[in-house]
Amino acid sequence: MKKKDTAPKQDGVTRQPFPNSKKIYVQGKIHPEIKVAMREIELSDTVDSMTKKRTPNEPVTVYDTSGPYTDPTKEINIHNGLERIREQWILERGDVEELNEFTSDYCNERLNDKSLDHLRFNLKHKPKRAKKGQNVTQLHYAKKGIITPEMEYIAIRENQRIDEMTRLSKQHPGQDFGASIPAKITPEFVREEVARGRAVIPSNINHPEAEPMILGRNFLVKINANIGNSATTSSIEEEVEKAVWACRWGADNIMDLSTGKNIHETREWIIRNSPVPVGTVPIYQALEKVNGIAEDLTWEIFRDTLIEQAEQGVDYFTIHAGVRLRYVPMTAKRITGIVSRGGSIMAKWCLAHHKESFLYTHFEEICEIMKAYDVAFSLGDGLRPGCIADANDEAQFAELETLGELTKIARKHEVQCFIEGPGHVPMHMIKANMDKQIEACDEAPFYTLGPLTTDIAPGYDHITSGIGAAMIGWYGCAMLCYVTPKEHLGLPNKEDVRTGVVTYKLAAHAADLAKGHPGAQHRDDALSKARFEFRWEDQFNLGLDPELAREYHDETLPAEGAKIAHFCSMCGPKFCSMKISQEVRDFAAENKVEGDEVFAKGMEEKSKEFKDKGSEVYL
Amino acid sequence: MKKKDTAPKQDGVTRQPFPNSKKIYVQGKIHPEIKVAMREIELSDTVDSMTKKRTPNEPVTVYDTSGPYTDPTKEINIHNGLERIREQWILERGDVEELNEFTSDYCNERLNDKSLDHLRFNLKHKPKRAKKGQNVTQLHYAKKGIITPEMEYIAIRENQRIDEMTRLSKQHPGQDFGASIPAKITPEFVREEVARGRAVIPSNINHPEAEPMILGRNFLVKINANIGNSATTSSIEEEVEKAVWACRWGADNIMDLSTGKNIHETREWIIRNSPVPVGTVPIYQALEKVNGIAEDLTWEIFRDTLIEQAEQGVDYFTIHAGVRLRYVPMTAKRITGIVSRGGSIMAKWCLAHHKESFLYTHFEEICEIMKAYDVAFSLGDGLRPGCIADANDEAQFAELETLGELTKIARKHEVQCFIEGPGHVPMHMIKANMDKQIEACDEAPFYTLGPLTTDIAPGYDHITSGIGAAMIGWYGCAMLCYVTPKEHLGLPNKEDVRTGVVTYKLAAHAADLAKGHPGAQHRDDALSKARFEFRWEDQFNLGLDPELAREYHDETLPAEGAKIAHFCSMCGPKFCSMKISQEVRDFAAENKVEGDEVFAKGMEEKSKEFKDKGSEVYL
Repeated sequence: MKKKDTAPKQDGVTRQPFPNSKKIYVQGKIHPEIKVAMREIELSDTVDSMTKKRTPNEPVTVYDTSGPYTDPTKEINIHNGLERIREQWILERGDVEELNEFTSDYCNERLNDKSLDHLRFNLKHKPKRAKKGQNVTQLHYAKKGIITPEMEYIAIRENQRIDEMTRLSKQHPGQDFGASIPAKITPEFVREEVARGRAVIPSNINHPEAEPMILGRNFLVKINANIGNSATTSSIEEEVEKAVWACRWGADNIMDLSTGKNIHETREWIIRNSPVPVGTVPIYQALEKVNGIAEDLTWEIFRDTLIEQAEQGVDYFTIHAGVRLRYVPMTAKRITGIVSRGGSIMAKWCLAHHKESFLYTHFEEICEIMKAYDVAFSLGDGLRPGCIADANDEAQFAELETLGELTKIARKHEVQCFIEGPGHVPMHMIKANMDKQIEACDEAPFYTLGPLTTDIAPGYDHITSGIGAAMIGWYGCAMLCYVTPKEHLGLPNKEDVRTGVVTYKLAAHAADLAKGHPGAQHRDDALSKARFEFRWEDQFNLGLDPELAREYHDETLPAEGAKIAHFCSMCGPKFCSMKISQEVRDFAAENKVEGDEVFAKGMEEKSKEFKDKGSEVYL
Repeated sequence: MKKKDTAPKQDGVTRQPFPNSKKIYVQGKIHPEIKVAMREIELSDTVDSMTKKRTPNEPVTVYDTSGPYTDPTKEINIHNGLERIREQWILERGDVEELNEFTSDYCNERLNDKSLDHLRFNLKHKPKRAKKGQNVTQLHYAKKGIITPEMEYIAIRENQRIDEMTRLSKQHPGQDFGASIPAKITPEFVREEVARGRAVIPSNINHPEAEPMILGRNFLVKINANIGNSATTSSIEEEVEKAVWACRWGADNIMDLSTGKNIHETREWIIRNSPVPVGTVPIYQALEKVNGIAEDLTWEIFRDTLIEQAEQGVDYFTIHAGVRLRYVPMTAKRITGIVSRGGSIMAKWCLAHHKESFLYTHFEEICEIMKAYDVAFSLGDGLRPGCIADANDEAQFAELETLGELTKIARKHEVQCFIEGPGHVPMHMIKANMDKQIEACDEAPFYTLGPLTTDIAPGYDHITSGIGAAMIGWYGCAMLCYVTPKEHLGLPNKEDVRTGVVTYKLAAHAADLAKGHPGAQHRDDALSKARFEFRWEDQFNLGLDPELAREYHDETLPAEGAKIAHFCSMCGPKFCSMKISQEVRDFAAENKVEGDEVFAKGMEEKSKEFKDKGSEVYL
């Protein structure tokens, strides 16, 4: 695949709007201060092939994760960070205090290190924390019956203005496997789902730049893109661009999995410039703090890391608290043992100390920290299978049961919580994962990596896993963690990230269609109508990757004229099924035939008419 | 994705063997003259991380569609064509006659046209046809209780020597939805499946170069790659290379869908050099013969085209005989009408003549032709849906019922027959397609295009469709027609063909795992074991695309040393979950702990030992 990155940059980040698209902002009703960002794609007219009459096509509104970067009217300076759209909503609740300084030792150590000044984001805002005794989670508000601005934002966003658009077909009823997807997402529905723990709004009070979004089986399936450096260190601008780029193509969430130097400073730049929630795996950074010696990890170091990251604004933490000592030996006979980094770190710690991990034993203290900032749990699956052979084994499901117990504890604390899942699973064993997770974790949102449905295609694991991702999304998974073509082989570059994100976006959409999210089919219908009518530009622009579609088209037929031609490059002008098909339709319409009526109306005559009218399509 | 085609060419076709692989030939028992080609991948030793002891890894045998091109011991000259491995088998049955000349008028017209001499393949063999009154189909033999060499070849090929390889894990039991997959494929099982019409062996007596293969729900899922020129004409060498290239990456079948000039001559070159069965859609060529005017098509022209192609050796014909006049108006209200080229041609013909098509009215005569050469029917789905909205509609399923009736007629004539299917179908509506097809067509093999599970990702339709393909393969589909990234946009180039074929190969394999084909998991296990043990070269070589995997790896860590390093590029040397996991395993093995035994044995002490032994993994 050849792809060109021709988008103009500002501050090193991509800002080009999508073609024929404009950003629109839909106002809230309960909270009129809300302005929900969406993208509206303008379409060209349909031209009747016989009469040449033009009929306008309504614009199509689509869910937009790209943030203000694709809005040319917004001024952006990554040194200032994005507009803090949730700032007032948070302050108005009256339950947070602004701290005079960061409360993590490590954070202050870094802040006081003058040698890092050149790396530092210019912090203009003080960290916030719940006032003593307060709980600032969306779950807490939801249970109190409060519809927060975040909830209304999400309700508007999930509907994608479907009620305002003319449906082009009757959407197929979905098969939802016991989900409760309503015909329209209301703010009250969002509240209810959050209240019962069936949905999560990752929304740290210290990340007011993020546009609210929701994870839950009764909402659109979301995707996550992992970013972050590893052995090599990239520049700050590059790190911010990674986030912007991933969101541009459709990432609903990003996880910063950096393990290099200056994680703390890099994270600050990412969060301040991220329009989507940001997750991390705090144990990675904690391990850096003990020079990579897993046995030297302590609860104190981990605790300080949680506070450090919570005060920066991380929206959810992956915490591998389900790796219990007794489960570790269950992995000894696996073909690929433990493949989760967090899981293996904790397994090593457990074995070395012959103790349950501090993540497990201090779980309630972790909850206390989480609720002071509204950081959500992403309960990590440290024992997920790393190959087809190890799928759905004793270790994996034992951990899942423990994650279910921990979910109950998190909920008791009114801390938002979702659950991570595998991994590598053959197709016929995927549903068991979803079903067991729903049961063990009482419908807490599920967040899976793939799963990969075979191990034999390194270089194509975005596809081996995209298959499993689409399926588990259909079965009820709330968020799909993307896999790039470089999985198992190397670090993804920018084009790999784009390929991974778009692959997962299409998988998530396939799942939305299958489970029956209201209005999901509208974009498919609009694109297919454009395709049928040879509106090439509209076909490109309604797709997930307009640039690539156009590039592929132009490889065969580069002339601009070909984009308004009533044929396509597959068959050429003489031999086009779509064109013949349009004739069939014209014929039927003209003769008002429907089904068996054809016969009743004396088709012999009609067919003569058809010929006489010069039905010739071939040029 | 960047891919380099560095393979050396001979006669313009790719001949490079796969890395660390050799071609092996397994001899038949019933028919000792059979030599079934397979590929054996040599692996390196496992080196114990503690003791440095080396343990050899058995080579892995894999299904190989690449033909003699990847066997350096074979001499190949595309001007002579491939070795005619089935020639003697066919002659020994004593039921065919060699014709002194071709019996198609068009064929003879072309042969007598001196201006085409430079294009012509140097024919050395006369066409064969069944002796008067004989039926030479595999179905006919199967019903008579004969196990043909083709059947034994297939039995050996389907098993991939699994009995001779040491299993690395217990394969997960499949979920086969009522299929009858045995623990081992025997020649008698192949015969039974063919006899009851549940499997098809595409094997025209005039294509003795092809290595026998089978389509059926109880066998490995197969894939088809479409090749052929369109508006532009390629050179003969290019056309042959297209076929060789598609087979190299895993195409079990190819369809020559050429619509340009010199279709007849090009086809001859392709068939003479194709190691896999070749299918066509004869109506395309028939239409060329009437200058593209669908209404001018006649039974006589079509009949002559069938004979022309059957005597060249086409193994199966797509015949859109299910497009009945009364179904055509059912498509008028669709978003994308009729998208099958063959379907739209026949629809136009039906409307113009107000008659059932000659494909339908002359179906029994077509059967008579098919059985004289053993050409199989691929009953075309001319009314397949072209978008999500049109999936599973009245027109589609009405045609499917007709295809079921035609299947009965074909079987009455003992002509092999399989059925084509959609198209564009959301995930939750795929299974209904498979189930209805099984019922309507009495388990005749199903052969689907995708299906595409969403319309919104032009440029990524190999993936939108790979999802549906994997699923329907699991549900029982016998062959998956590939889709390339250029679908809907343009003509695939070589790299698109590779991407499409590998995508479909992995989808087919995911389906084999899910339905439980015996031994399917062995390659996954071997690759995962290599991955876990950081045998990088083995991991590449066991994959479907070793070149691409290596290229991706080398992008991050190009040094040769990195390929024997005990870490990977994702985490670097300090931070590797696989490495930690190996430690956990070593620890457990050394201490002989299993599950709760850990506790019984006084783990406190063990963990001390672990530390004392210098468990440090970080360099």
